[in-house]
Amino acid sequence: RIDSARLWDSLMEMAQIGPGIAGGNNRQTLTDADSEGRHLFRRWCEAAGMTMGVDTMGNMFATRAGEDADAAPVYMGSHLDTQPTGGKYDGVLGVLGALEVVRTMNDLGIRTKHPIVVVNWTNEEGTRFAPAMLASGVFAGVIAQDYAYDRRDAKGLRFVDELERIGWKGTEKVGARKIHALFELHIEQGPILEAEGKEIGVVTHGQGLRWIECTVTGKGQHTGSTPMYLRRNAGRGLARVTELVHEIAMKRQPNAVGAIGHIDVYPNSRNIIPEKVVFTVDFRSHILSTLEEMVAEFNARAPGLCAEVGVKFSSQIVGQFDPPAFDADCVKAVRGAAEKLGYSHMDIVSGAGHDACWINRVAPTAMIMCPCVDGLSHNEAEEISPEWAAAGTDVLLHAVLETAEV
Amino acid sequence: RIDSARLWDSLMEMAQIGPGIAGGNNRQTLTDADSEGRHLFRRWCEAAGMTMGVDTMGNMFATRAGEDADAAPVYMGSHLDTQPTGGKYDGVLGVLGALEVVRTMNDLGIRTKHPIVVVNWTNEEGTRFAPAMLASGVFAGVIAQDYAYDRRDAKGLRFVDELERIGWKGTEKVGARKIHALFELHIEQGPILEAEGKEIGVVTHGQGLRWIECTVTGKGQHTGSTPMYLRRNAGRGLARVTELVHEIAMKRQPNAVGAIGHIDVYPNSRNIIPEKVVFTVDFRSHILSTLEEMVAEFNARAPGLCAEVGVKFSSQIVGQFDPPAFDADCVKAVRGAAEKLGYSHMDIVSGAGHDACWINRVAPTAMIMCPCVDGLSHNEAEEISPEWAAAGTDVLLHAVLETAEV
Ligand SMILES: NC(=O)NCCC(=O)O
Ligand SMILES: NC(=O)NCCC(=O)O
Repeated sequence: RIDSARLWDSLMEMAQIGPGIAGGNNRQTLTDADSEGRHLFRRWCEAAGMTMGVDTMGNMFATRAGEDADAAPVYMGSHLDTQPTGGKYDGVLGVLGALEVVRTMNDLGIRTKHPIVVVNWTNEEGTRFAPAMLASGVFAGVIAQDYAYDRRDAKGLRFVDELERIGWKGTEKVGARKIHALFELHIEQGPILEAEGKEIGVVTHGQGLRWIECTVTGKGQHTGSTPMYLRRNAGRGLARVTELVHEIAMKRQPNAVGAIGHIDVYPNSRNIIPEKVVFTVDFRSHILSTLEEMVAEFNARAPGLCAEVGVKFSSQIVGQFDPPAFDADCVKAVRGAAEKLGYSHMDIVSGAGHDACWINRVAPTAMIMCPCVDGLSHNEAEEISPEWAAAGTDVLLHAVLETAEV
Repeated sequence: RIDSARLWDSLMEMAQIGPGIAGGNNRQTLTDADSEGRHLFRRWCEAAGMTMGVDTMGNMFATRAGEDADAAPVYMGSHLDTQPTGGKYDGVLGVLGALEVVRTMNDLGIRTKHPIVVVNWTNEEGTRFAPAMLASGVFAGVIAQDYAYDRRDAKGLRFVDELERIGWKGTEKVGARKIHALFELHIEQGPILEAEGKEIGVVTHGQGLRWIECTVTGKGQHTGSTPMYLRRNAGRGLARVTELVHEIAMKRQPNAVGAIGHIDVYPNSRNIIPEKVVFTVDFRSHILSTLEEMVAEFNARAPGLCAEVGVKFSSQIVGQFDPPAFDADCVKAVRGAAEKLGYSHMDIVSGAGHDACWINRVAPTAMIMCPCVDGLSHNEAEEISPEWAAAGTDVLLHAVLETAEV
């Protein structure tokens, strides 16, 4: 079993970097705080006897040598970047849990045939630079590196410029590594495990996602002196599309979710009718055909709802992945570890996207989930218990030991 | 008659300061650009033989001496600050038209019994610091100076700190000046004069206004892993209230307008359900009882519409004025000037709020309006013709000459 206190100490130490305003974290990707977190992670990895490699997307790979130098490594990890108002565990538990697995193996003198790699993927969250899971997507060959480099944040800064600025653009070619298998430990970010009283979620599938960036265009005019019949208020387009998104998801319960999280209004002045509203719709389902139907219905209805109130609608997809099904053997290794260790467990679908969803395209992959309080995540109040963290990390240890061949 | 070419040259020269991104201006109040515009205006006033006074709200008063030093001055002017994406004429025409009136009087050697003052009011627009017409409101005694000083912009900067920073906090006590009468020339900012083919709007009344800042509070959770039935999406509250505002204004046509121009979403991340949305409703009517009914209906219905979708609604008034009726004698002077000069004219209600609406509470006041293309204002594409500008300024000249007693 892993050292629960040591794991918790490391989680709390990392949470000092990029503190939020309400007890959580703001350690967004490619900020100074992200760089500081990476330096701490590297120091810890080196202290645990690992060697660090960094690729041209800034992905970090810490390797613990195996007995067979030619064997492909077993990977485990997640991401250290957070939402602007994020929690202390989303992503971080998966990276520091993996580090704790190596520390435990060192303590117990355990050697494996396959090398072990602890990975920190760049820009999982996708808040600053859309889409999410950007660097694991490049690794898996589903996103072009040039496209990723050109992503811009709200200030217009480019991904690659910020990666260079914080000093974490490595030299290793992205995706060149062989992967024997990959395991990602992550908090559930939903309420199911806690409600069912289970310590471990054995993730069999994930939801697919479509991010649709929409622009509604009206006319920016004076709110006082423009007669009602002459107005083209882009805000009314937003209002109607907000309710459309909700309706489209609701009529496919329990197999779908949908919401608009990001909204920018132009020029955003109290006495100017909105000229333009730009916002992103997030649709998800674990059933591909459902996801595609949602997008089709949205595309069919949104322009008309906007035209009815005199404004123009346009949209483009800015993030997408289809529902993944994880590798049967890796999933079995996770379930077997939970059983062996006596942790209560259940099969579960991941509501969120994860780096493991991309890597699953190029290597055998599985995920382990542990509960979080009230299912709350992407919120500074995100919370887990040390016991849940330890249970998930124990299962990670045993799934990896089995796969890496002791 | 005034010198139309000189007036237009001055308008175009002022428009060089704080250029927008689409041919208009971004010379928001208490920015460096605002300060630069003020310096240019002061140089012009001094070159025209006037002496400048500045009060503790940054209001600028350029005085042309009268024959009777004890007579209260006749004021004319408006504001030099603009919207973030504003036009070149909104406010500016009223200030530089007034300057042109003095230049013409100088050219023609006209003396008046009453001194003449050209005024530039601080922060008319209210975009950066709500409410609008802030400094004329303090002058008229309807807004406390301490309250005005404490207004904060979106970055949290205080009004008084910014006023000091740009070097335009004067020493004169606000509102201490005697005013014999005040005339404000302004573009209509609406489509009526152009549609009716009139060169001059004789403003008899204005609309009253209520700015209601609303906060809808839900729960910021993951857009992927939070089941639909657990969501409390503040964006849905915004959607419903947007349509409510429209409905409340539409059922009182043609006596009311309403819209939401300013919206801030928190934390505004693509994969976080909006935790909080803060936005400002702008309701107006030229009938006080109608305005009050709109606010009452809004307050009665908005909380329930939000509660139905599981989010909380709260609100506060952040700007308000009742519909003004301008001074009968001043209005007569404007109408008489238009008739004497042979300009086509009509009586009109001002859709927008103006500094003159506040000053009307403490001194005889009237407004002159000239058309603007397509009624477009609060937009960089705002346009007027040199002929319209000249007609309005001619009427200003003659209304002021009559009132200041040649
Ligand atoms: N786990 C997680 O929050 N990933 C970000 C991508 C997503 O929105 O699902
Ligand atoms: N004239 C003008 O745009 N004033 C700003 C206050 C208002 O919104 O009416």
